[in-house]
Amino acid sequence: MKIRMFALAALLGTSAMAQVSPDQAVREKALDASVSSAEQMGWLKSMTSAPNHVGSAHDKANAEFILGQFKAWGWDAKIEEFEVLYPTPISTTLELLGATPVKLGGQEPAIPEDSTSGNTKDALPPYVAFQGDGDVTADVVYVNYGLPADYAALARRGISVKGKIALARYGGGWRGLKPKLAQEQGAIGTLIYSDPANDGYATADTYPNGGARPPAGVQRGSVADMTTYPGDPTTPGYGSVKGVKRLDRKDAVTILKIPTLPISYADATKIFAQMRGPIVPDNFKGSLPITYRTGGDGSVKLHLAVKSDWSLKTLYDVVAVMKGKDRPDEWVVRGNHHDGWVFGAADPLSGDVAMLSEAKALGELAKTGWRPSRTIVYLSWDGEEPMLLGSTEWAETHAAELQKKAIIYINTDGNGRGFLGAEGSHQYQHLVNQVAADVKDPQTGASVLDRLRAKLRAEAFDGGKVDGDALKAAEASGDLPIGPLGSGSDYSSFLQHVGVPSLNIGFGGEGESAGSYHSIYDSYDHFTRFDDPGLAYGAVLSKTVGRLVLRIADADTPPVRFGDLAVTVRTYLGEVKALIDTRRKQDDKRAALLATNAFTLASDPKDPVSAPVAEAATPIIELAALENAVGRLEASAKAYDAAYAAKGAALDAAKRAKLNAVLLGIDQALLIPEGLPGRDWYKHSLYAPGRFTGYGAKTLPGVREAVEERRFADANLYAGRTAAAIERLAAKLDAARAIIG
Amino acid sequence: MKIRMFALAALLGTSAMAQVSPDQAVREKALDASVSSAEQMGWLKSMTSAPNHVGSAHDKANAEFILGQFKAWGWDAKIEEFEVLYPTPISTTLELLGATPVKLGGQEPAIPEDSTSGNTKDALPPYVAFQGDGDVTADVVYVNYGLPADYAALARRGISVKGKIALARYGGGWRGLKPKLAQEQGAIGTLIYSDPANDGYATADTYPNGGARPPAGVQRGSVADMTTYPGDPTTPGYGSVKGVKRLDRKDAVTILKIPTLPISYADATKIFAQMRGPIVPDNFKGSLPITYRTGGDGSVKLHLAVKSDWSLKTLYDVVAVMKGKDRPDEWVVRGNHHDGWVFGAADPLSGDVAMLSEAKALGELAKTGWRPSRTIVYLSWDGEEPMLLGSTEWAETHAAELQKKAIIYINTDGNGRGFLGAEGSHQYQHLVNQVAADVKDPQTGASVLDRLRAKLRAEAFDGGKVDGDALKAAEASGDLPIGPLGSGSDYSSFLQHVGVPSLNIGFGGEGESAGSYHSIYDSYDHFTRFDDPGLAYGAVLSKTVGRLVLRIADADTPPVRFGDLAVTVRTYLGEVKALIDTRRKQDDKRAALLATNAFTLASDPKDPVSAPVAEAATPIIELAALENAVGRLEASAKAYDAAYAAKGAALDAAKRAKLNAVLLGIDQALLIPEGLPGRDWYKHSLYAPGRFTGYGAKTLPGVREAVEERRFADANLYAGRTAAAIERLAAKLDAARAIIG
Repeated sequence: MKIRMFALAALLGTSAMAQVSPDQAVREKALDASVSSAEQMGWLKSMTSAPNHVGSAHDKANAEFILGQFKAWGWDAKIEEFEVLYPTPISTTLELLGATPVKLGGQEPAIPEDSTSGNTKDALPPYVAFQGDGDVTADVVYVNYGLPADYAALARRGISVKGKIALARYGGGWRGLKPKLAQEQGAIGTLIYSDPANDGYATADTYPNGGARPPAGVQRGSVADMTTYPGDPTTPGYGSVKGVKRLDRKDAVTILKIPTLPISYADATKIFAQMRGPIVPDNFKGSLPITYRTGGDGSVKLHLAVKSDWSLKTLYDVVAVMKGKDRPDEWVVRGNHHDGWVFGAADPLSGDVAMLSEAKALGELAKTGWRPSRTIVYLSWDGEEPMLLGSTEWAETHAAELQKKAIIYINTDGNGRGFLGAEGSHQYQHLVNQVAADVKDPQTGASVLDRLRAKLRAEAFDGGKVDGDALKAAEASGDLPIGPLGSGSDYSSFLQHVGVPSLNIGFGGEGESAGSYHSIYDSYDHFTRFDDPGLAYGAVLSKTVGRLVLRIADADTPPVRFGDLAVTVRTYLGEVKALIDTRRKQDDKRAALLATNAFTLASDPKDPVSAPVAEAATPIIELAALENAVGRLEASAKAYDAAYAAKGAALDAAKRAKLNAVLLGIDQALLIPEGLPGRDWYKHSLYAPGRFTGYGAKTLPGVREAVEERRFADANLYAGRTAAAIERLAAKLDAARAIIG
Repeated sequence: MKIRMFALAALLGTSAMAQVSPDQAVREKALDASVSSAEQMGWLKSMTSAPNHVGSAHDKANAEFILGQFKAWGWDAKIEEFEVLYPTPISTTLELLGATPVKLGGQEPAIPEDSTSGNTKDALPPYVAFQGDGDVTADVVYVNYGLPADYAALARRGISVKGKIALARYGGGWRGLKPKLAQEQGAIGTLIYSDPANDGYATADTYPNGGARPPAGVQRGSVADMTTYPGDPTTPGYGSVKGVKRLDRKDAVTILKIPTLPISYADATKIFAQMRGPIVPDNFKGSLPITYRTGGDGSVKLHLAVKSDWSLKTLYDVVAVMKGKDRPDEWVVRGNHHDGWVFGAADPLSGDVAMLSEAKALGELAKTGWRPSRTIVYLSWDGEEPMLLGSTEWAETHAAELQKKAIIYINTDGNGRGFLGAEGSHQYQHLVNQVAADVKDPQTGASVLDRLRAKLRAEAFDGGKVDGDALKAAEASGDLPIGPLGSGSDYSSFLQHVGVPSLNIGFGGEGESAGSYHSIYDSYDHFTRFDDPGLAYGAVLSKTVGRLVLRIADADTPPVRFGDLAVTVRTYLGEVKALIDTRRKQDDKRAALLATNAFTLASDPKDPVSAPVAEAATPIIELAALENAVGRLEASAKAYDAAYAAKGAALDAAKRAKLNAVLLGIDQALLIPEGLPGRDWYKHSLYAPGRFTGYGAKTLPGVREAVEERRFADANLYAGRTAAAIERLAAKLDAARAIIG
């Protein structure tokens, strides 16, 4: 999973408790009664007792344990296997050469206060999956977060990574972009370290005194080029079932080309100590007690080598079905992964045990004679960490069936103490708000919605950064907006490839799991001390998502409000227009400053910063069709919502069936058949992981990213394609409204 | 002197070279030819060869050297002595108590690469002047910059300094506010340390590898309550001539009450290492490799004691006069101080040697037969560092004569490599721009004005913070605005007490003198390696200020443009109105959040942050009279400027004399007879050092600070008094215009 930035995320809420039927209220009471934090702690303890990465014995054992639980609770459950390319290190080498060479890297050390941290016999050492094996010796350049703006800043200081090793810090953008952009810039290797400013001592006491990352802690992760496509790199767009035909590894574009390792800040400090070159720009500076310099002047010689085992491994996805009594061919799909990088307590098992509580509660309800109106499908994914393997291969394998049957996919992942975070398809925004108003925060007794609303308002007053729309909604006591989905967990295939509306739900912001993220210290001990003591928020997550599942599964017609989606799309369009305007102004200003030699005159001759590269002006983009489409969506959505509110409850069975048939799969209208520019796996016209943010979402991505990246022909082309997608959705809504009459 | 924050300061410029007369051009060429960087280096080397604080043998020797130079160059020069209260430490004690007590503090260590750093036999150890002697043992609380907002943030975390020692970091506001506010909050002692984020390794390599503050470097300084009045605490408002009647020391309100010491970050690290308590808010965090905590939970025991010698010391102000041939009773006054904290290379001697070059050049001009039209008075002040003693006592002694004769005071202080910075009375803004257009930057060959303009524009494009009005002017190729004067150097008495228009001029922003500021490392070696190699900018300062002196001294009528002042005052009024509006909105919002319990709900129960204190709403302030006065000033200033532009050159001698008589002392119209609220020494209605910024200026201070501090009766009263002052100025301008006819 990605780390949620709860303090900055756009979040959610609503003004009043929803009107749920008396039967529904009884079931939700039963759900609440069934959910047990203590039980979740027991599951978490055993599931985190040994390394559980893909291919490990304990990961398979966990899948079998989960399977057994589902079966015991009355679900129709099985394990579905896939065979995937999953590299694991044979050797990782990092040496600081010189008069007395210093060996760096290797496994993280055990901490006496952490009972599993010594149990690393079967654990993977720090590495990043899908880097490019190699053996290089070169000088080092510090590239900050390793994003395009960082390389531009270095270039203006005369520094290039060509033929060198890029040293990037974690944060600022998704991990995998760092080696990808480094190799594009000509680097021959990459190191990624965790600066204490981001998740170390600057944030809290280090583990085990507090939850922050200790000096020797390292963040593992995948660097497969997710922004092109997730899943097995050798089976793009189709399922990695046993025996399937695969691309040759060298033709798999999502596998990177240069050796890359993640390192600790203890190791990074030793490298920085030898680096010279210009002092870095202020935004490159972290919290190490050093003068950060760019390096790149030949003062350091590093030996970096990675050699991997590239054999296929087996994935174990657990699939559990509870058949719907009225609409068995309409599915509510719900998932959380079970594989971790090492012990995986916060990520992902804190979410997986919450999901188990839901499944148990639903099983118990079923034993009382209740059956859901729709079919409910629970999935405990394998292989999320290496690159959403378990969910992507499953969704690709079952794509046709999902497009016919799935009305929603609800995802969770690591969870923790704090505030509700929710992102997803905006027609479900109101439902999420209603549910959040009905679930109590365990620390304050307020609803999780009210607590979130209070936080948005108080943070704004105290000067913290908050989302503009979220704050406006909080102040007006309206529904709090949910954020858009980028990537970083198992919803991606459902939403962005198959076209199934999705939600991603979790709590956090008050725990300290950032400090153990993807390290051997993401353990039961760390989690229960610093992230969610007593798993109070594990229970809250179960109650929140359990309600979402129950309300959607039992609704006569999916509880959507397309007006909320239309309002959101209008906001996105406004942002894109403002972006174009800002870019044009910047382009004019840059040209004017270049013409007057201002950058050179302003530069300190002792530490020169050259002028930025000249750029052609951003042209006017053809947005008329997109403006018209958004206008039509607003009208059609409003008309549908009003019609359903007025007459929805009284529809006869025939009309209901017709209406539900139209709504089922309606999001597929938003898919662009050609996919997004340069990455046709991603088809959603509204939401995508950013090409230069990774996990972070880009909305109206075909147009927005084309403007950002100065691909102006694409911008015009995708303004039209996006408009067409939105028009298709509006037409479906018109059809739905016509059925209501 | 204060450290200039060049990157943020509001600065200056103009669109075209000034039209100077052929004679004037010849004199300026002679000025340029006379100024020698090499000569300045020689003077700097000898003047920095030994400690030169007030009372030291070398400070007196420097005064005598300067006197000799002035005399040799033909000036009518003398030394004027004052007797001032100036405490120096008998003993300073700092101990971290515990099982094995650790001694902290003491003199800074010698550095082999710095040739004077071992010459500390006669040097003062690190201390702050005018703290309150005492001997205390207590726990410690980290108070960030020690400003009101910091104490509010601590209070919300349940932390108080009552009965404890406040540990503040340098920066964020003037040094003296830290112990003053600490004692008001009930602290019994204060420590002030230099965080490496502010001037240490986070900014550059530490000395001697680079110019940044080394771990053992300490910033000395004065903490006398300058914001109430500067100068000798026991002679407020009158000169400390020998034998004058003095307040008893205990009645001198500007002497603080609690023991205070400045310390290094090496020492601060040892204290922080033992502190517990809540983790601090983000804006408290510096660059030490620690988890910053508030302390205050009893985990530290510090022993702090200071004992001072409170005897009187003698000041040696050097006063040099060149009598005007046409208008001997109109004075152009020019000053820079010569006392330092230890060796004082950057602060103040880099400015003092530049002033010597001007004096030499003027002396050489005089030897060619030229005499200035007006009298020129050069002053090399003593005792600036302890609290502007030399200039304040001199200005208070000669106040009546200055009010009759001084048309301007031009100040400089420490200087360095980089960009022009200028602040002062805005009727001189255009002149400063004209001069800046005529002086070449030594590194680029552009005018110092064009270089500054380029910097403002490039920084804005690159995302740096720049002043809004300055940037607007830079983009429009108009005059760059000069900033307002607060305090921190010797102009304060002239401008804010006596009512003499003032300018403060210096270069900087590319040197690293922040790292040696007020330490033993502010040496010739540091300065010539890292601050202004070759003193290239020492020569530029001489050429800039020399031109200002010459042009003002020889002008028929002072080269002022009151329209620039009026525009500036209009801007200030707009800011005050926006402030009131913002405060009212904040007050409403705070009340709404308190009413809904939002702060409590938003708080992490594990690290609770309580709600802010309730405040009554900011009322509407009576600004009508002030609005009218500013409107009248705009009209009167515009009319005067237009009349002088049209007919000023052709005035007959009688009219000229009458006009000059009106203009002489015209700024005294802007003085408020009652002074500012609670500090009647400060009388200027437009400019003052901020009560809670110190060096930083507050404009329209009587009104603005009253609003900020919720003294609403004062706000109404001073809106009226400020309006009356501005009306008086407008009436004088009307009278001046009437003379022109």
